[in-house]
Amino acid sequence: MADIPARTELKVTTGPIRGSRKIHVPGPQGVRVAMREITLDPGSGEPPVRVYDCSGPYTDPAAHIDIMAGLPELRREWIRSRGDVEEVTQREVKPEDNGQLGPDRSGGVPPFPHVRGRVLRAKAGANVSQMHYARRGIITPEMEYVAIRENVGRAALQEKLARDGQDFGASIPDYVTPEFVREEVARGRAIIPSNINHPESEPMAIGRNFLVKINANIGNSAVASDVASEVDKMVWSIRWGADTVMDLSTGRNIHDTREWILRNSPVPIGTVPIYQALEKVGGIAEDLTWEIFRDTLIEQAEQGVDYFTIHAGVRLPYIPLTAKRVTGIVSRGGSIMAKWCLAHHKESFLYERFEEICEIMKAYDVAFSLGDGLRPGSIADANDEAQFSELATLGELTQIAWKHDVQVMIEGPGHVPMHKIKANMDKQLEACGEAPFYTLGPLTTDIAPGYDHITSAIGAAMIGWFGTAMLCYVTPKEHLGLPDRDDVKVGVVTYKLAAHAADLAKGHPAAKLRDDALSRARFEFRWRDQFNLSLDPDTAEQYHDQTLPAEGAKTAHFCSMCGPKFCSMKITQEVRDFASKQNAGAETFIAAEQGMAEMSEKFREKGSEIYLPAE
Amino acid sequence: MADIPARTELKVTTGPIRGSRKIHVPGPQGVRVAMREITLDPGSGEPPVRVYDCSGPYTDPAAHIDIMAGLPELRREWIRSRGDVEEVTQREVKPEDNGQLGPDRSGGVPPFPHVRGRVLRAKAGANVSQMHYARRGIITPEMEYVAIRENVGRAALQEKLARDGQDFGASIPDYVTPEFVREEVARGRAIIPSNINHPESEPMAIGRNFLVKINANIGNSAVASDVASEVDKMVWSIRWGADTVMDLSTGRNIHDTREWILRNSPVPIGTVPIYQALEKVGGIAEDLTWEIFRDTLIEQAEQGVDYFTIHAGVRLPYIPLTAKRVTGIVSRGGSIMAKWCLAHHKESFLYERFEEICEIMKAYDVAFSLGDGLRPGSIADANDEAQFSELATLGELTQIAWKHDVQVMIEGPGHVPMHKIKANMDKQLEACGEAPFYTLGPLTTDIAPGYDHITSAIGAAMIGWFGTAMLCYVTPKEHLGLPDRDDVKVGVVTYKLAAHAADLAKGHPAAKLRDDALSRARFEFRWRDQFNLSLDPDTAEQYHDQTLPAEGAKTAHFCSMCGPKFCSMKITQEVRDFASKQNAGAETFIAAEQGMAEMSEKFREKGSEIYLPAE
Repeated sequence: MADIPARTELKVTTGPIRGSRKIHVPGPQGVRVAMREITLDPGSGEPPVRVYDCSGPYTDPAAHIDIMAGLPELRREWIRSRGDVEEVTQREVKPEDNGQLGPDRSGGVPPFPHVRGRVLRAKAGANVSQMHYARRGIITPEMEYVAIRENVGRAALQEKLARDGQDFGASIPDYVTPEFVREEVARGRAIIPSNINHPESEPMAIGRNFLVKINANIGNSAVASDVASEVDKMVWSIRWGADTVMDLSTGRNIHDTREWILRNSPVPIGTVPIYQALEKVGGIAEDLTWEIFRDTLIEQAEQGVDYFTIHAGVRLPYIPLTAKRVTGIVSRGGSIMAKWCLAHHKESFLYERFEEICEIMKAYDVAFSLGDGLRPGSIADANDEAQFSELATLGELTQIAWKHDVQVMIEGPGHVPMHKIKANMDKQLEACGEAPFYTLGPLTTDIAPGYDHITSAIGAAMIGWFGTAMLCYVTPKEHLGLPDRDDVKVGVVTYKLAAHAADLAKGHPAAKLRDDALSRARFEFRWRDQFNLSLDPDTAEQYHDQTLPAEGAKTAHFCSMCGPKFCSMKITQEVRDFASKQNAGAETFIAAEQGMAEMSEKFREKGSEIYLPAE
Repeated sequence: MADIPARTELKVTTGPIRGSRKIHVPGPQGVRVAMREITLDPGSGEPPVRVYDCSGPYTDPAAHIDIMAGLPELRREWIRSRGDVEEVTQREVKPEDNGQLGPDRSGGVPPFPHVRGRVLRAKAGANVSQMHYARRGIITPEMEYVAIRENVGRAALQEKLARDGQDFGASIPDYVTPEFVREEVARGRAIIPSNINHPESEPMAIGRNFLVKINANIGNSAVASDVASEVDKMVWSIRWGADTVMDLSTGRNIHDTREWILRNSPVPIGTVPIYQALEKVGGIAEDLTWEIFRDTLIEQAEQGVDYFTIHAGVRLPYIPLTAKRVTGIVSRGGSIMAKWCLAHHKESFLYERFEEICEIMKAYDVAFSLGDGLRPGSIADANDEAQFSELATLGELTQIAWKHDVQVMIEGPGHVPMHKIKANMDKQLEACGEAPFYTLGPLTTDIAPGYDHITSAIGAAMIGWFGTAMLCYVTPKEHLGLPDRDDVKVGVVTYKLAAHAADLAKGHPAAKLRDDALSRARFEFRWRDQFNLSLDPDTAEQYHDQTLPAEGAKTAHFCSMCGPKFCSMKITQEVRDFASKQNAGAETFIAAEQGMAEMSEKFREKGSEIYLPAE
């Protein structure tokens, strides 16, 4: 366990991403939507490229960052002005909330300095979920925010860009209006995770008709980590593009670690409450009770957790279906509940108490992330009876949650070979009424530990294209160890590119703008623009400099692949000049045979110099 | 330029891959097929896992490796005993072959010490291509070798494994016979690149009904590299699984660098001869002539190059089709030919002299890799008229090559968003009569330079599944710089996992054996077996040790994710024991409600201890 972190140890990375600046786009109801703008070389004549921005105030040089104080409460007035919440005294923190069951309380995490004491809860009989508002026809500021945020560059290109893509039955609009957001939330096809006790969060939507999102997992474990590094990983992961963050802490200090993360997070935070409940009973799954679990839900809802993974689909009769699997049950939450069910030989209390859980969810607007506790843990176990039996139950639970106007998404696998991926999406859409799908990869082979961010990015890109709304990242350390800061970044960037590949293939309007801008920069040897437009400008520049470190090489009209003497990009520019000067389409080109000698002469006149020095 | 490497600088990595040993499986006609066998923990009761092995004698502790002498000539007698070749005096090496045009000859590469002087060529009127033999009903030792090599573990599992996969019309046999190999080569659906002057090579097949292969690119460039590091990269890339290697050297020392590589390579070597031809004319594309190109083909065929990328599909009328592209022509060979065509305003000599090229190819058994000189260089340019016009021409050229019994594969893109990938495969199959497709990725987005091994692995896995026979790797340095040793390894392992994901999805028999063995090892906490079964045991172990460095952790029944207190894998083992003891299928499980209390009691009796110390 780490020592209590001193103030100076709570360092996070701040400042703009290279080549970008933070902007705020104003909208109705007082919303100011954060975006990132990548400024291009003035000589290029190209407008700046706006990109979706998850990084919060940390990349805004104008923001004052104080981890000890937490972020400003962006949504504070929106929440309070709706008139359906009341302040209540926060449940008192007990030693067992931080896993301090015995006399040894060393290695604790200091409580967050600004513990609020009083928290929000829906007034008696009220339902504060975004879904509830949506179904009553109310467009909330959260929905306004999402609409502006999702459009990014779309405004600029209306009427300009032909739609291109295969969307497998999605209903992606040309332009996202607040009313469209409301409709999607109302029918359960999208969620806006937004606990009323997490007013620091910048609203975002998860749904198949919005941009594909990614989640990064962080968290203490029983064998490693400390709160300073977890807060840092949270800030680091959103810097590179994590849309939500799950705090999967186990072991001790769960409550306090989470408070630090929530108060400093501009993105929705998800948890798996059964992890903390298990710590409260000393790690003995059989000793879990509904009362302890319920108390944990309230504890976390009061802190502001935006979505809960709840493995309510792990039903007693499904457990024997896993016995003949190659890798059995690999979900931690799933195996905890399986053990409880077997030990008591009773149906899961999560399943039986599901409506009671809904009552808690709607009092804080916590969204369900219905866990796939029986997901396959290997290629061999993909798409089996255990998995799909649970999925059918998740569909049944979705309908119950929706009856309560509680937001729901559905978790998916896992390990699935490519030819079995589409069936996962199809069955999920059918069983769960288009509730957003949230998958972990899937990994498309088991033979590459150390590279499972890649084995899974293949599956993630594909299932994202097919309709999955959010992709849970996998880092290079998957199956092997705990991700460090570098692993978190690699995982986030890998999933960001997979999500973007899916957006392109689905035909999201404007998704291609950034690809095109980068490709033009590449073609025109605007190296800095190419770096800045990439998902990871630092790595792109570093790789370039390993071969051609001289500063001049960043404006040179060649690269290390072909060198200065011969460059295919330069030749293409000549082809282009030539074709345009001759005004030659393919037909005229061929027809003009009589002029060939002359054309050849002209080309030679101007074509002898291939390498032009940089301007 | 590097200094002339001293003997001691020519170091390559030798010795077995961790946890593996080299075996040789004997077959008819004196073939002994190299494979790698991964030995598992004796306590597991599992047989060793045999895997396809590209690494040649370098991983065989019994082999004597001397880079200065080259590898033994495995195929020497096979080639000579066919009675259709003659020894001729090798074309004399000219200064311009190594780009030494001017008086400055510093920075040269020493010639390979054992220059042969005499080389093989088909006797007058003979055709020594594997396709020619196949069409005459001859099963060569090369075909025997391929058949045994492709089966890997299939023999063990006949009648055991149900076929599972979606093969999109491929004809993958349960078991590969020499006759099947012959048929596939005869009909042009597979090639066995095997220049008679590269007897060091271990035969391998490229075709949609065989395992998906990968290629690694290496080579000097005008701005960096030296021969020692290129030989090292070749050996390093095959160690991790490159099935073929392309030497894409440009600049100087092309001839000598290639000789070092060929004499030490157990895998087929491909080149792009126009690169060297261009150097011979001082980099001035317009000055290229058929005679210089022809001389270069013979020079390289005599050295033993197994396949030539020839951009004969870049026809004059297609060039203007690229003028409005975002990234024009990005193929170096394509742009060289485009420039030549424009400068002379004549049809490409590669296209016009194609039958003459075929005559050279069949005299040495060099296979065509028909280059896609007009491949898209960005998402914006994917699947456009220029690209598909060229593909139609490649189909036409395939028929001409086949008329000469010359082996052919077809190169493909490039940059293609996911929803446009399948069309590439479908059109290629239709236009080129199922000649093997050999694609570069494709990259599925342009916004992640620094991670293009991943953006392209997504596309590569998909197009491999759809039917592409060989995937050309992309390293993290793509678009940015020249790959170093680490990049080569990352590129190879990334493509190996993509190819394997494709094999799984196509339903190659036995492909899943390795996944299953690794998954069982994972489930049973056989950490060393998990490492050894992975594509990169060194990285897997290193990542594990970063979190749990103690030696004991490698036999511990837990991992760093959940820690010792609670582990989902352990719980599953309990579920399994429990289910099997009760002999409970799902139905009996539910039916036995009256016995629930009793079952619960039994479970508690044995279930209190979750963490069992390692044996």
